[in-house]
Amino acid sequence: MNSTIEPLKQPAIPFIKEGYRRYRMTVEYCGDSFYGWQRQALTPTVQAELEDALVIVAREKVIVHGAGRTDTGVHALAQAAHFDVQTELHCDHVMLGINYFLKGKGAVVTSLVPVRPDFHARFSALSRSYRYYILNRRAASVVQYPYAWHIMRPLDHEAMQEAAQLLVGHHDFTAFRDKECQAQNPCRTLDAFDVIREGDLITTYLKSRAFLHHQVRIMMGTLKWVGTGHIKPSDVLDILTSRERKRAGQTAPSCGLFFLGADYPEHFD
Amino acid sequence: MNSTIEPLKQPAIPFIKEGYRRYRMTVEYCGDSFYGWQRQALTPTVQAELEDALVIVAREKVIVHGAGRTDTGVHALAQAAHFDVQTELHCDHVMLGINYFLKGKGAVVTSLVPVRPDFHARFSALSRSYRYYILNRRAASVVQYPYAWHIMRPLDHEAMQEAAQLLVGHHDFTAFRDKECQAQNPCRTLDAFDVIREGDLITTYLKSRAFLHHQVRIMMGTLKWVGTGHIKPSDVLDILTSRERKRAGQTAPSCGLFFLGADYPEHFD
Repeated sequence: MNSTIEPLKQPAIPFIKEGYRRYRMTVEYCGDSFYGWQRQALTPTVQAELEDALVIVAREKVIVHGAGRTDTGVHALAQAAHFDVQTELHCDHVMLGINYFLKGKGAVVTSLVPVRPDFHARFSALSRSYRYYILNRRAASVVQYPYAWHIMRPLDHEAMQEAAQLLVGHHDFTAFRDKECQAQNPCRTLDAFDVIREGDLITTYLKSRAFLHHQVRIMMGTLKWVGTGHIKPSDVLDILTSRERKRAGQTAPSCGLFFLGADYPEHFD
Repeated sequence: MNSTIEPLKQPAIPFIKEGYRRYRMTVEYCGDSFYGWQRQALTPTVQAELEDALVIVAREKVIVHGAGRTDTGVHALAQAAHFDVQTELHCDHVMLGINYFLKGKGAVVTSLVPVRPDFHARFSALSRSYRYYILNRRAASVVQYPYAWHIMRPLDHEAMQEAAQLLVGHHDFTAFRDKECQAQNPCRTLDAFDVIREGDLITTYLKSRAFLHHQVRIMMGTLKWVGTGHIKPSDVLDILTSRERKRAGQTAPSCGLFFLGADYPEHFD
């Protein structure tokens, strides 16, 4: 689990233009309202809404860089982001202004602070954390657990936890990444993968410096097989070493996935 | 706190017709989707949706009796209800059938079981519990705490807890009931009223055999005054003894209120 062996491309010193100030913000959003994080030509995305709000509130055209480019339908409790502007911002007023613009759109800025110019939401991140919820009962939920994968068949969460532990560590996760994943290196270091049941709710917590495309959701789809007894916990190791996507489970639905946020070195606080 | 002094009208033996069987169910619903629990002529209500579903699924016209008639906008995690039918039901199939009918309507039946004919969802209840959520931060929430009263000004939750404790016990709650409340007796025994803060979320838990109309929400509106320092904790006693509705705080919004459920004697389990 030596994270130094994980090669992630990053610039030596993130670039900031002369006369600009950098601001760090935290964003909460509901995945249902957006076609993911990244700006697209015709569909609403979180990045585009934030940039459009900042043009109006801060009166400057900006690019907002996020810690993780979440997919369509994936929620975020504390997406980290940064942007550069020439003006000195009154952070509280600007945050309220952005949130006024975002009202009813499914996103909200929960913090906005000035940050050192060498902070980069994507490249400075030490780790990223996700939570995945499964509601395991006969009836769906409308208000208590509205964001969860509803699985009616009883799941053995202890077997799921056993399987999850086999995936923790530094591995080639080719079997658990989408065919369209563009990462050059399929190796990642999974720092945590914990499965906990509280009543009908199975909560999974994952932490890694970075994840491959759909890695969390394909691992969850495979853990569902373990939970229903379709495969044994140890079978996930065979799937892992096979490096074959077709041997792993389905890509679990995005509705249960929450990007919790990214961790950064303390000197950026 | 002697609950025997609380006079609630109830029939000596709840009535069940010859040849009928009684079923008990638990219902979760989102207050946004309904004009409250009780059937009305023209607007969607939870009771009406359940009765309409049961006509189709169980092929009998039934009346569904709930433990508490929640207002428009109030959510329920485990509303208790009962109904009588002549047919013996396959409970799991009927529950799935009702939930198919309810899909997308904001309500779901989470349990359905046969129950003794002397069980009555309203009259057998020993107590009812509610939770009220306040989100106390600058930014609203879209996915983490979508159902909460958003208050930007910092609230002193310890002062709110101090005030809440003064309302626990047997009192005349005239100052804290809606003018349209039809209860003959304004006295109630509040068994619990606890205010807890976890980060930005202030959670309030309330328990009583029965509540007056809008009692929880008017008490919450008054506790907001305590939290902002507009009044002292001890002032709630003056408001209570004044028996004047106009001296208490606003009726807090319904969005933060959850009916948790009712407790019944063990022999009904």
